[in-house]
Amino acid sequence: MSKEYILRVQCPDKYGIVAKVSTTLNKANLFILDSAHYGDPENKTFFMRAKLIYPKKVFNIDDFSKFFSKECKSLKMEWSIEDIDYKPNTAIFVSKYGHCLQDLMYRVDSGILPMNVSCIISNHKDHQKIASWHNIPFFHIPVIKDNKNKSEKEIRKILKEYNIDLLILARYMQILSNKMSHDFFGKIINIHHSFLPSFKGAKPYHQAYEKGVKILGATAHYVSSKLDEGPIIDQSVERVDHAMTPKDLELIGRDLESITLARAVKYHIERRIFINNSKTVIFN
Amino acid sequence: MSKEYILRVQCPDKYGIVAKVSTTLNKANLFILDSAHYGDPENKTFFMRAKLIYPKKVFNIDDFSKFFSKECKSLKMEWSIEDIDYKPNTAIFVSKYGHCLQDLMYRVDSGILPMNVSCIISNHKDHQKIASWHNIPFFHIPVIKDNKNKSEKEIRKILKEYNIDLLILARYMQILSNKMSHDFFGKIINIHHSFLPSFKGAKPYHQAYEKGVKILGATAHYVSSKLDEGPIIDQSVERVDHAMTPKDLELIGRDLESITLARAVKYHIERRIFINNSKTVIFN
Amino acid sequence: MSKEYILRVQCPDKYGIVAKVSTTLNKANLFILDSAHYGDPENKTFFMRAKLIYPKKVFNIDDFSKFFSKECKSLKMEWSIEDIDYKPNTAIFVSKYGHCLQDLMYRVDSGILPMNVSCIISNHKDHQKIASWHNIPFFHIPVIKDNKNKSEKEIRKILKEYNIDLLILARYMQILSNKMSHDFFGKIINIHHSFLPSFKGAKPYHQAYEKGVKILGATAHYVSSKLDEGPIIDQSVERVDHAMTPKDLELIGRDLESITLARAVKYHIERRIFINNSKTVIFN
Amino acid sequence: MSKEYILRVQCPDKYGIVAKVSTTLNKANLFILDSAHYGDPENKTFFMRAKLIYPKKVFNIDDFSKFFSKECKSLKMEWSIEDIDYKPNTAIFVSKYGHCLQDLMYRVDSGILPMNVSCIISNHKDHQKIASWHNIPFFHIPVIKDNKNKSEKEIRKILKEYNIDLLILARYMQILSNKMSHDFFGKIINIHHSFLPSFKGAKPYHQAYEKGVKILGATAHYVSSKLDEGPIIDQSVERVDHAMTPKDLELIGRDLESITLARAVKYHIERRIFINNSKTVIFN
Repeated sequence: MSKEYILRVQCPDKYGIVAKVSTTLNKANLFILDSAHYGDPENKTFFMRAKLIYPKKVFNIDDFSKFFSKECKSLKMEWSIEDIDYKPNTAIFVSKYGHCLQDLMYRVDSGILPMNVSCIISNHKDHQKIASWHNIPFFHIPVIKDNKNKSEKEIRKILKEYNIDLLILARYMQILSNKMSHDFFGKIINIHHSFLPSFKGAKPYHQAYEKGVKILGATAHYVSSKLDEGPIIDQSVERVDHAMTPKDLELIGRDLESITLARAVKYHIERRIFINNSKTVIFN
Repeated sequence: MSKEYILRVQCPDKYGIVAKVSTTLNKANLFILDSAHYGDPENKTFFMRAKLIYPKKVFNIDDFSKFFSKECKSLKMEWSIEDIDYKPNTAIFVSKYGHCLQDLMYRVDSGILPMNVSCIISNHKDHQKIASWHNIPFFHIPVIKDNKNKSEKEIRKILKEYNIDLLILARYMQILSNKMSHDFFGKIINIHHSFLPSFKGAKPYHQAYEKGVKILGATAHYVSSKLDEGPIIDQSVERVDHAMTPKDLELIGRDLESITLARAVKYHIERRIFINNSKTVIFN
Repeated sequence: MSKEYILRVQCPDKYGIVAKVSTTLNKANLFILDSAHYGDPENKTFFMRAKLIYPKKVFNIDDFSKFFSKECKSLKMEWSIEDIDYKPNTAIFVSKYGHCLQDLMYRVDSGILPMNVSCIISNHKDHQKIASWHNIPFFHIPVIKDNKNKSEKEIRKILKEYNIDLLILARYMQILSNKMSHDFFGKIINIHHSFLPSFKGAKPYHQAYEKGVKILGATAHYVSSKLDEGPIIDQSVERVDHAMTPKDLELIGRDLESITLARAVKYHIERRIFINNSKTVIFN
Repeated sequence: MSKEYILRVQCPDKYGIVAKVSTTLNKANLFILDSAHYGDPENKTFFMRAKLIYPKKVFNIDDFSKFFSKECKSLKMEWSIEDIDYKPNTAIFVSKYGHCLQDLMYRVDSGILPMNVSCIISNHKDHQKIASWHNIPFFHIPVIKDNKNKSEKEIRKILKEYNIDLLILARYMQILSNKMSHDFFGKIINIHHSFLPSFKGAKPYHQAYEKGVKILGATAHYVSSKLDEGPIIDQSVERVDHAMTPKDLELIGRDLESITLARAVKYHIERRIFINNSKTVIFN
């Protein structure tokens, strides 16, 4: 009964890393089924993701970790290995618009997005019914001006209780505090309803309408402390024309948002994304 | 021997314009083969483009114009009628990058873009050979700091001499003066090598690389006195990834630029575009 | 309290139809807000769709119909006028795959697709729960070899009972009889999971995988008596690569199917589609 | 003065190939800068492409070849190594339509496609002028019914004389003989002006028009002895609508053809493509 694992490596770039890593893996009876790597020529950083198979009986991850760390010590790696079937515990945040939430839930139910949706958190009560239909705990945490600290305290409590790995802002219209964005950096995915860096901030469809663009976009990105500025994960676009109202653009945008967010979440779950300063490296 | 014409109408929007216009045309023995119209709900402006046929022998455009203006006086229209085969006299402006110029020339030669390329104007001598291959006058007008007035004076002289209707900035890396942009408003098409309004100004591919976008774009627009801000005509995009260098982005961008510019020029030649304040209305 | 209507016209093409129709409408105090027309140069057929406004108090559709038919008699038109808010009574057919059904239901609930989902019909019981969540009657009509007549008889009874205007085959894996396809021609929309005319029939994702295509597609079309051959309404595509398994292609295909079907249904509801022999004319 | 190389490997799939290959390379002072591999789960074949750097002074390719073959003997590989700057000697075949030829020549001249265009071969004289402008030998080889053998004999003589590695059929409207297709398999790239497998054979734009498709395509593929059936390299698409004539489709198709062919040729030149029976494996 062979098992598969995902190995992720990040380290200063130099010659011979692939050979060193693959040989060390072979010594531990782990074999590369699929791999991709990239050396950023600017900051001389090496990234690698590999799908591994262990064809023997019982894989002891602690023993392997000690061995691998020791053998590859000179490479100064940050690295991780995880069972390919590991599902992150996820909290989905939503406000009034439910299309991204619904789309995510459909993909979870049908096995396209392998994650545990541990809870749904909202500053409104509109989508409580969807949560109960899916038997998922729903937390209504209103955010009133000046109480952001209080509400984030509640949120953090929930995240801890459910041991949350991944926060998805599925059209959650509240801005997280700098502290929160910082503490969960790389674990919060947001969908912004424009083709960033165009049209940051509020009402991007109105901005796009005013500007008269001929192509509409959506952007999924990791949340950083700068509004709508975190590393971009994925973008999608659709043609539009002069006759479309802001409302029309919004309807077209919803499909873009759902699909783009779902794709970004999939990349994250499959551990394909590395954050490379303000950008992402994403392996197919 | 029937002839076809393009009618363009712009006027304050109200009920009954289509009926009034089409009936008046019929009285003049002009029949609508194809038409499109749009009423902007914000500024209450009506736009119409129609392809007409005159099935009788000789069409007297002056007689028609008097008749049409008188009959439709109450509509307060700006309007024009032109032979469908009218080809604008065009000046193509280019600097160091020749791909848009080459692409335009190929489309002109093969009949895809029905326009007269009257002259090619450049601040460099690189593309003189292409001009001579196509038997088109080439003017080398260097632009040195502080001599913009002098060079624009030369340019205006050429435009007058060749009776130029349309100026195409095919990767012309000089910024026209406000006066020039104003005087030829609606007659100058520029290709900007980014997905506007993102990445205005210089080196957009480097800006896109720094930002880590996942989709690259190009934008064709009418030139206004604000840099890279005129009414957008067309945009195109292509997916890119983390491994691409600014040079790679530039190569991908060239195809986007050529295609987007050619499409915008085609819309203009076919008189499909109306400028609606800072935006465009484009009829298919 | 002004009201809006959709007028649809189809007739032999000749000069002056737009003028005749728009003038006749004006006489009846109906004004064109938006219109599009097309004359097929091959079969000399004229198609027109117009959005009309009646700015007066009470519009008598019967009086108008008599007047319009009489005035335009010489044009030999087939025509119809309907309230812009008319919602078709729709039956959604589904088998094992529920993604198109779920997507349609989301769009109906959120107002994107203005139609009454009168009932859901399936040859399986899998999606009964979705129907009950939305309070929609669900009919389980198994189709066993040799009982197609029996099951279609049941289906026809339901369609009659609910006064159904539109049948949507949302991954319904049964082939309707020629008789059924013929009787409801122009009222049945199917989503085929390939880029037709490639990969007709069963298992198109496997066919695409075997062929090694680099782009995957989906096609929404009206059902005719020839399998996967009816007039195409809309198509969508997505890039794929060699590393994707038939399962991967299927997952990518699901998004294509949902979006393409939803778009086709929207065009139909908005009465934008005319069937032109084996093709469609679709006005934006 | 370090040098870079492209290594290509194909062999029966099994565990440990990446480790074996990379370690062997390191022993020879060759280091992986970039690599990609794929194991086809159906036919158990492993494919690998790696960009290598030799940081020392003089790389002896013969010595390396002996060493590498010996060390990796057990893997039963077909493999090759080539200087990254190697440019294939290319013959471009063209008939009446010159857009693909012109596009290729522009990309060659501007350094986008690093290949030597050794000669242009045509069954017509139309494009002799382009050849002479680029100082490339032009061969006019008419193909008359029943003389295919004679003309292919002439072609083979030219290919031999110029030591041709790559044949590009840039809208060459003659069908090569089975013998020719077989002898040069994997070295002939054709652009077919449809989205294969739809619309094989003649007049695909007319076929697309008749069928009423809503998306138009082009396909670049290796030529095999079955007409329009060889392994697909790349495909592109563009939306079209009912109002477009076969002529319009053809004009849109030209851009698709040029871009798709250029992309396929680029993949080939960069040695990214492996033929995997009737399909291709293409590494980014």
